[in-house]
Amino acid sequence: MNLEFFLNYIIESKMCLILKKKILKQPTIPIEVKPKKNVDKLIEEMSLTAFQGRKLAEVVEVWGRMFQEKEIVIWLGLAGAMIPAGMRKILGYLIRKRMLDVIVTTGANVYHDLFEAMGEKHYIGSHFSNDIDLKKLGIDRMYDVFADENKFYELDMWIEENFCSQLKDNYQYSSREILQILGQILYEETKNSESVLSAAYYHKVPIFSPAICDSAIGFSIMFANRRKKRNIILNSLKDIDESSLVTEKAKKSGVVYVGGGIPKNFIQQTAVIAKYQTGHDKGHDYAVQMTTDMPMWGGLSGSTLEEGQSWGKIDKKAHKATCYVDATIALPLVAHALSGRFKEMQRKGPIFKWKKIFT
Amino acid sequence: MNLEFFLNYIIESKMCLILKKKILKQPTIPIEVKPKKNVDKLIEEMSLTAFQGRKLAEVVEVWGRMFQEKEIVIWLGLAGAMIPAGMRKILGYLIRKRMLDVIVTTGANVYHDLFEAMGEKHYIGSHFSNDIDLKKLGIDRMYDVFADENKFYELDMWIEENFCSQLKDNYQYSSREILQILGQILYEETKNSESVLSAAYYHKVPIFSPAICDSAIGFSIMFANRRKKRNIILNSLKDIDESSLVTEKAKKSGVVYVGGGIPKNFIQQTAVIAKYQTGHDKGHDYAVQMTTDMPMWGGLSGSTLEEGQSWGKIDKKAHKATCYVDATIALPLVAHALSGRFKEMQRKGPIFKWKKIFT
Amino acid sequence: MNLEFFLNYIIESKMCLILKKKILKQPTIPIEVKPKKNVDKLIEEMSLTAFQGRKLAEVVEVWGRMFQEKEIVIWLGLAGAMIPAGMRKILGYLIRKRMLDVIVTTGANVYHDLFEAMGEKHYIGSHFSNDIDLKKLGIDRMYDVFADENKFYELDMWIEENFCSQLKDNYQYSSREILQILGQILYEETKNSESVLSAAYYHKVPIFSPAICDSAIGFSIMFANRRKKRNIILNSLKDIDESSLVTEKAKKSGVVYVGGGIPKNFIQQTAVIAKYQTGHDKGHDYAVQMTTDMPMWGGLSGSTLEEGQSWGKIDKKAHKATCYVDATIALPLVAHALSGRFKEMQRKGPIFKWKKIFT
Amino acid sequence: MNLEFFLNYIIESKMCLILKKKILKQPTIPIEVKPKKNVDKLIEEMSLTAFQGRKLAEVVEVWGRMFQEKEIVIWLGLAGAMIPAGMRKILGYLIRKRMLDVIVTTGANVYHDLFEAMGEKHYIGSHFSNDIDLKKLGIDRMYDVFADENKFYELDMWIEENFCSQLKDNYQYSSREILQILGQILYEETKNSESVLSAAYYHKVPIFSPAICDSAIGFSIMFANRRKKRNIILNSLKDIDESSLVTEKAKKSGVVYVGGGIPKNFIQQTAVIAKYQTGHDKGHDYAVQMTTDMPMWGGLSGSTLEEGQSWGKIDKKAHKATCYVDATIALPLVAHALSGRFKEMQRKGPIFKWKKIFT
Repeated sequence: MNLEFFLNYIIESKMCLILKKKILKQPTIPIEVKPKKNVDKLIEEMSLTAFQGRKLAEVVEVWGRMFQEKEIVIWLGLAGAMIPAGMRKILGYLIRKRMLDVIVTTGANVYHDLFEAMGEKHYIGSHFSNDIDLKKLGIDRMYDVFADENKFYELDMWIEENFCSQLKDNYQYSSREILQILGQILYEETKNSESVLSAAYYHKVPIFSPAICDSAIGFSIMFANRRKKRNIILNSLKDIDESSLVTEKAKKSGVVYVGGGIPKNFIQQTAVIAKYQTGHDKGHDYAVQMTTDMPMWGGLSGSTLEEGQSWGKIDKKAHKATCYVDATIALPLVAHALSGRFKEMQRKGPIFKWKKIFT
Repeated sequence: MNLEFFLNYIIESKMCLILKKKILKQPTIPIEVKPKKNVDKLIEEMSLTAFQGRKLAEVVEVWGRMFQEKEIVIWLGLAGAMIPAGMRKILGYLIRKRMLDVIVTTGANVYHDLFEAMGEKHYIGSHFSNDIDLKKLGIDRMYDVFADENKFYELDMWIEENFCSQLKDNYQYSSREILQILGQILYEETKNSESVLSAAYYHKVPIFSPAICDSAIGFSIMFANRRKKRNIILNSLKDIDESSLVTEKAKKSGVVYVGGGIPKNFIQQTAVIAKYQTGHDKGHDYAVQMTTDMPMWGGLSGSTLEEGQSWGKIDKKAHKATCYVDATIALPLVAHALSGRFKEMQRKGPIFKWKKIFT
Repeated sequence: MNLEFFLNYIIESKMCLILKKKILKQPTIPIEVKPKKNVDKLIEEMSLTAFQGRKLAEVVEVWGRMFQEKEIVIWLGLAGAMIPAGMRKILGYLIRKRMLDVIVTTGANVYHDLFEAMGEKHYIGSHFSNDIDLKKLGIDRMYDVFADENKFYELDMWIEENFCSQLKDNYQYSSREILQILGQILYEETKNSESVLSAAYYHKVPIFSPAICDSAIGFSIMFANRRKKRNIILNSLKDIDESSLVTEKAKKSGVVYVGGGIPKNFIQQTAVIAKYQTGHDKGHDYAVQMTTDMPMWGGLSGSTLEEGQSWGKIDKKAHKATCYVDATIALPLVAHALSGRFKEMQRKGPIFKWKKIFT
Repeated sequence: MNLEFFLNYIIESKMCLILKKKILKQPTIPIEVKPKKNVDKLIEEMSLTAFQGRKLAEVVEVWGRMFQEKEIVIWLGLAGAMIPAGMRKILGYLIRKRMLDVIVTTGANVYHDLFEAMGEKHYIGSHFSNDIDLKKLGIDRMYDVFADENKFYELDMWIEENFCSQLKDNYQYSSREILQILGQILYEETKNSESVLSAAYYHKVPIFSPAICDSAIGFSIMFANRRKKRNIILNSLKDIDESSLVTEKAKKSGVVYVGGGIPKNFIQQTAVIAKYQTGHDKGHDYAVQMTTDMPMWGGLSGSTLEEGQSWGKIDKKAHKATCYVDATIALPLVAHALSGRFKEMQRKGPIFKWKKIFT
């Protein structure tokens, strides 16, 4: 399998040098520092460097290629707690420009977005804090970000009392529907689309949060059931049904993974389901990931896009790029590089037609 | 806050040396190699070394302490894909000895356990494989493990056809109920409790998989709904309801995290919910984690147990230990160390009373 | 030690809210995407986000503060193989602007700089290559960079033959002297100062490479000794002597670590030696590190700057920042941010007076 | 290059199933927990699991294979600060059993070994300490290990005063010679060979520490030169000369890397030098590494053994294994597994003949 025979042959026939010349073609080009260089330009220059710097440029390049496709659905899988980290408006921008079409994310991300959309704040803190002292003060820590626990409590009460009063009993909701209603409320109350939820509502970008129960949104709705004898149903089977339809019906699909976890697996899985449903053996056509999860631990979070190809989740001919870097560095850089490169673009994504939710 | 005043004082009063002597008390003890040393002994010796070696010993020590508690619920949060990695019987052992009382895990872990319980195999592979070639052969890769895609397909069909025929329409299932039924079927068909699902069924250890839809179990049930017009409901709100009750009612609770992800967050969250429900401000009393997720990326997966204390998820007086190591190294070592140390023990865990599921 | 008493007191005296308000003061501010934002601006905005994004901004901030000091020596510790990765001109820029005063680096970095200064190239490659095939073609791989082994061989011959003919027998060289001579040759032959070695020569920035023997420069000089019966002496004790003098005599010192390894340890150590020599108990006054080495493995490479404070390597009042990120991402960003922020600055660093080397 | 043609062919010719069967041959075997299992047995069982657990077993397997070779030199590259972490006697054991023949290590490792051989101790500490407080008490921290700074100071004085009085002026020492003299002194004074230095002296295992100046041994010798007008010379070129001779003259060579850094690069490099010297294009025949350094950052420390093959550092037919794990976990496990497996073995390694050092 290692081409030994073929290589021996060309060595003998003096073709070796020609092959070598073909491989050693594009030198790495040292970056020159300029005081007012914009982000887009720098990232472009990084494409001729090496290691994760070059990979970051490749992520931008592959994501940008997706926009050239006429009929494509672009998935964003967003793990972690990006909103407390100041990534909210970047996501809003990507939604408005329609640089993505469907979002799958954690309960944390939608909860914290809701929190900020309500006017609350996350605060600059320190990861060297004494957590016992913070506990006494009612301050919750997320690495180097602080939040006021009381404010979280107020939001949880709002979800249990106000938001749940707008949900129907006995109806089977998907997380997408829950988040669409939440987005609509936010949008109608604030008329601004800076939050992820309201921007997504306004621009008709569905948000799935398959593990939404793994957050205060989930447990606050549960409390409505438990304490007010409601019968709100969140049928997570509906999440798979709806999300898999997106990939099944897409001519082409691209995926952008920021971190791993459920969001990545969930989107990867839609390609497997699509194959089962349609019989077409075709994975996602474009794939980028920005992550700090490593492949050697064997988990899906850190798995390479290549591994995904063995499963048919990523297409064998897919354009791919992986950059190992913290999302709070990657997202701002990649978003600004795309913004510079596609300044004039206003992409029109697909409009998904879901059955009406509100009675 | 840095005790400057106090320290200046003691320096002046010559108490410095006394304090230093108190701090420099226990030397690290070099390990001596013996040919037939058993795992338990070696891990014990590692408790007087340093870095992650010592931490591994601390994990064993803290987990072992949980068994001394009369009334405690021990949670296991298990991320990743541990079954293909040969960890199935270790989990079976921990269940049988009742070294844990409740499991929260990924869809992958229960799916792969089911697969092996059905007599199927995962295979030794290589992480240097050409994934395009594997695709052509119908081989799915998980880092250095291979599996036959056709066998997965057969299992998916079994779930859609056979298993779903035992589920009721219109009933709201939690993932625990689904997995209990699955465990019962396995147990009754095989009469052995080597698989996680059947052992858990037999020993009355509930398994939650809050993101079970993020697996082939989930999408195969969805296909039953879609293709056979079934109306199976997996209400994920019920998962929070049931799981939070466990922590609410427990006198004490201990948590064991193998990796991060949903399992860890879900279990952490039960302490927050318990506080909301009961008004008692009390986190988990014992906590260990074995993980390769790092704190600096700000996500919950890598968050320190100390960070959890600021939220009240982990109690301020909790016994804690964290070891940064791959689970396929940690689990066998820790399980054997516990096994050696508690050879005679047959712990009796709490029996959870859930309402009947089968009509 | 956990302030329990003090905190209980303030809780009782209702001062809790005041303290909380003081801690929760500065919210994280979401970044807004603008198409032509320059790097400096973006990094500044990242200072009000979180996780490693914010840390990157802090690195720029602390490094920038060093320039405000009148009498300071700024050390750069540079690990890895940054030159093949296109970082050569960034280093040249930092030297020219005198954003650093002394460099400690690996043999690899000076060797590859020499290689490129000679007009040779490193090439864009792939980390998915078949290394056996590359071997057959005479291509050396550094992750995703390729180089022509024959060209390396030619350079090694040049060092053994030409360069060594300019070195004296029986004289005890430090690595700094070797590299200064190399820089002078490069500068005089090319009259340009784009390479690290020639720029450093021209701008009188000394470069230490304490493990220079751990590179082809080292072994090629050894071959001159072995094959031509030369007696070139590289007394590594002289490296410590010279380098420690720098910190001993500096009023203030700042350190910039890109990666760990010998460069970091060597610079840390100068503070310990300075204390032994001068009796002044004072560590480095400013310290930043950009690294992918983690603290939990217990090594010096990944050790926190705080750990360095226990040793007195970093001063207890030092301004510090650590960002966990690949250097090929960090260096371009940080250099451009500094460049934007200190556009007009031409810092004058200290001039070191070393005894004459050439005869 | 992806075998497309060949694979299409076999698919058409129905050979696909045969190939698949050949690939899916060896299932992963779940480990069964037994209370008194010894380490060797457990590691053996891990060879049929997956991820880093299996890799650890492969490390043992490949290292063990080296012992079957009649004429082989086994190198150990040991980074970090393993002695404070309680690894001293494990290294002593490996030396006594002659499971290695030459050591390349950091200045830290030999310094801390000397420290403990002198009867001093490292102490169990905590990585959550306040380093400013530790500084005030004169306690140096290495992650979770503490040491008394005064004791270090005393040792440094001993090196400067006593040890240096046994070194000659004007003689060009290699680090190996310095460490051999140190080992001899320790051995003669203590008559025990539990320390790495004295065991290595007694068993004629040379130790190189190419960056020994990057430690308190180095700077204390420097102080002898500076303060007592000595002229001790540590010619690091001699380190390359001596070390490369080992690989040049070896029929076969094996390498064991615990961590990366200079030790790894230095040993890798001997294969390149050997080729230059002898014209034989042959890398190390066996290679294992246990490390937490990752390949994606492009540095030599984290580089794969495969990457080393492109350079000819590792032979194209070499037996190889890499395990990503902290050394304080890996070393005890691997040493005990080897000890169990080769209980009766007393390997006779090669005896190196160096010119006499003492006049």
